[in-house]
Amino acid sequence: MRMYDIIAKKRDGKELSKEEIEYFVDGYVKGNIPDYQVSSLLMAIYFKGMNPLETSNLTMSMAKSGEIIDLSSIPGIKVDKHSTGGVGDKTTLIISSMVASCGVPVAKMSGRSLGHTGGTIDKIESIPGISTTIDRDKFFDIVKEIGISIIGQSGNIVPADKKLYALRDVTATVESIPLIASSIMSKKIASGADCILLDVKAGSGAFMKNIDDALELAECMVSIGENVGRKTIALVTNMDKPLGNAIGNSLEIVEVCNVLKNNGPEDLTGICIDLAANMLYLANKGDLSVCYKLAKESLESGRAFSKFKEMIIAQGGDISVIENQNNFIKSNLREEVLSNKEGYIYSMDTEKCGIASMMLGAGRETKESTIDYNAGIVLNRKVGDYVKVGDKIATLYASTTDKISRGKDMLLDSINISKEKPNNMPIIYARVTNSCTEKY
Amino acid sequence: MRMYDIIAKKRDGKELSKEEIEYFVDGYVKGNIPDYQVSSLLMAIYFKGMNPLETSNLTMSMAKSGEIIDLSSIPGIKVDKHSTGGVGDKTTLIISSMVASCGVPVAKMSGRSLGHTGGTIDKIESIPGISTTIDRDKFFDIVKEIGISIIGQSGNIVPADKKLYALRDVTATVESIPLIASSIMSKKIASGADCILLDVKAGSGAFMKNIDDALELAECMVSIGENVGRKTIALVTNMDKPLGNAIGNSLEIVEVCNVLKNNGPEDLTGICIDLAANMLYLANKGDLSVCYKLAKESLESGRAFSKFKEMIIAQGGDISVIENQNNFIKSNLREEVLSNKEGYIYSMDTEKCGIASMMLGAGRETKESTIDYNAGIVLNRKVGDYVKVGDKIATLYASTTDKISRGKDMLLDSINISKEKPNNMPIIYARVTNSCTEKY
Repeated sequence: MRMYDIIAKKRDGKELSKEEIEYFVDGYVKGNIPDYQVSSLLMAIYFKGMNPLETSNLTMSMAKSGEIIDLSSIPGIKVDKHSTGGVGDKTTLIISSMVASCGVPVAKMSGRSLGHTGGTIDKIESIPGISTTIDRDKFFDIVKEIGISIIGQSGNIVPADKKLYALRDVTATVESIPLIASSIMSKKIASGADCILLDVKAGSGAFMKNIDDALELAECMVSIGENVGRKTIALVTNMDKPLGNAIGNSLEIVEVCNVLKNNGPEDLTGICIDLAANMLYLANKGDLSVCYKLAKESLESGRAFSKFKEMIIAQGGDISVIENQNNFIKSNLREEVLSNKEGYIYSMDTEKCGIASMMLGAGRETKESTIDYNAGIVLNRKVGDYVKVGDKIATLYASTTDKISRGKDMLLDSINISKEKPNNMPIIYARVTNSCTEKY
Repeated sequence: MRMYDIIAKKRDGKELSKEEIEYFVDGYVKGNIPDYQVSSLLMAIYFKGMNPLETSNLTMSMAKSGEIIDLSSIPGIKVDKHSTGGVGDKTTLIISSMVASCGVPVAKMSGRSLGHTGGTIDKIESIPGISTTIDRDKFFDIVKEIGISIIGQSGNIVPADKKLYALRDVTATVESIPLIASSIMSKKIASGADCILLDVKAGSGAFMKNIDDALELAECMVSIGENVGRKTIALVTNMDKPLGNAIGNSLEIVEVCNVLKNNGPEDLTGICIDLAANMLYLANKGDLSVCYKLAKESLESGRAFSKFKEMIIAQGGDISVIENQNNFIKSNLREEVLSNKEGYIYSMDTEKCGIASMMLGAGRETKESTIDYNAGIVLNRKVGDYVKVGDKIATLYASTTDKISRGKDMLLDSINISKEKPNNMPIIYARVTNSCTEKY
């Protein structure tokens, strides 16, 4: 087998065999195939695509390039959840607590913030004392004992993806549905869960700016999951406005607690119930209506909040900040953003909101940046609200006046105020299963 | 400027600016831009093409990457000729002698054999004693004195093409019209001639297997030539049968002498008159009909043959083999190929004829192979001829029985004998100038 022939075959729009895909992934990871041949193949895939069988084979070849975590020692159906990345998206912490409180074990490895989108691990780490670097045995023990643990990614998970992603990033081959889908799904499969729930974001704050692309990605990933024996459901959800009101790590933990106490913002609570119900459904907890009921009850009863607190304690976190969120350290500086115009908040460029939060210190501008856990934005008004000149739109938190100033400019730039009232946007656009795509 | 943005721009089908093209060619030659970014750009160009302006800018950026030969010290209009490569194509030696004998100076750098196609320099070097590695001053002196010299490529001509071609060769990006055209034209422009005549071959023995592709390449190259101020004409010619009857170096020199003595095969003589007339036309020797008359007279008068002999002597060659071609050393072995079937020679897979000649020792199977100058094929019958069982089709020359045996099998495999008489094939399909494409 020769890499040249594999490139030429894909360039000519033909289907690559399982053996050809394995040859290239394996050869690349081992250093036997040079970057320049792989980058020309990636560009050919960009133009010619991959069919579901090829994409599934690529996913499995990548997953098998490193460790595949064995969760079989944990009893029950393990369901993993993945979000393609959003602004203010703190759903993982909420829904994991919800489903764990319903008896579905959650052994989850999460990532850190990337660009304008937040990362679950950074959010958790804003809780003083908590550990997210727990060894594998201890991690399993916590899940077996209390049913939930969320830690950072560790081990040699999908080295093929690390190498391929770094190459795609510098060769303009990131934006390819089969390459995005196989990158995400290979990591989910290597993480060992039996079922996968995907939250595919669409809108100005998401990687996929329009709904059609997000739908295509969702359908591609669901097809991979089913092809490789993992029951998979995707929800395509709205990222044309931040999720909830808080953006920034400890600020988001406060909002997580509010939702878990059944006292959170309506949009965020709603999507958490949708996501949790679908995870429960994947875990065979009943038909979808039963699972919705279970999800709501987990919030109303306080069981989800209790489960969350159990996890914080098990991972060494300071529970006092959860019991009383005023105990979180406050930022040095606090600045109110006032409206300079009267009208409806017609739209928010959500990516810019994310960047504003990053500029305040809540995210990483470069890989080396350190995070200010208490920095960020709390939105007092959102899309659809009517504001007068001088009305408070948001409150900003940061450590320096320079950061406040940059973040404020960017946030103001993200908001479009208009005489016209915007249409109501749904939170969920579609639910994709192997058998059908249901649009809402 | 960032290479990433250049790749993404071409990937999205947009026009690259002159500055962007220069940035990438210059950066690649200097080693500032890595192979893996260039190969993904090349694949994007494969899919999205380049318009005439981009292709011309690419050509000039490549030409300027190395030495551009200054022929201005040689008086007169210098016309260069390029063939895209064929089997039995010895036209360069004939037409250079023809036009030089009409007063058009020829200062030509030629290449060696590649794959199944022959190279002019290997053919010349079959003449004992001749030198093709003459220093620049001596080369110019010979051209000034006798009007013609043909030597091997020397100097640092278009290093960008060497580097890009090597990369294209391993990344399945060779077959792209703008990349092929800019590769050829950059070398022609760096070679310093005022005008360029292109012989673009189409057929089973050529790189371009069909006429439409050859036409597209011809038009692309003519447009480049005109865009960069070099008057350029292309003839699209038939390579569905070998040109003339001889394939192999000294065997072809014998045929060159026959044509120059106005006693050569009709097809080869015809195309040489066409090519030479167009070179004379480019050199402003009159309208095309006048130039055809001049070309024919150069053969009939013996002037072209005299000019050829002057060149051989000036470059130190043994003129006795030209005066009496029986003086060429004969191959050890000589084998007749007889027909095993009765009917018309319906077609010849000309690439296979070229490979048969290479197997006999006339070409290079690998870069390191040495050439047997006396090996090759003389065809006794060609496409359209009627043969009976036992009729002699060809005579093979080689140094070992093993080579004879391999070459014979390949040659027989190339010939298709049928009850049906084939249609007459034209030798020239089209003439392409900047103002029009005239199909014959």
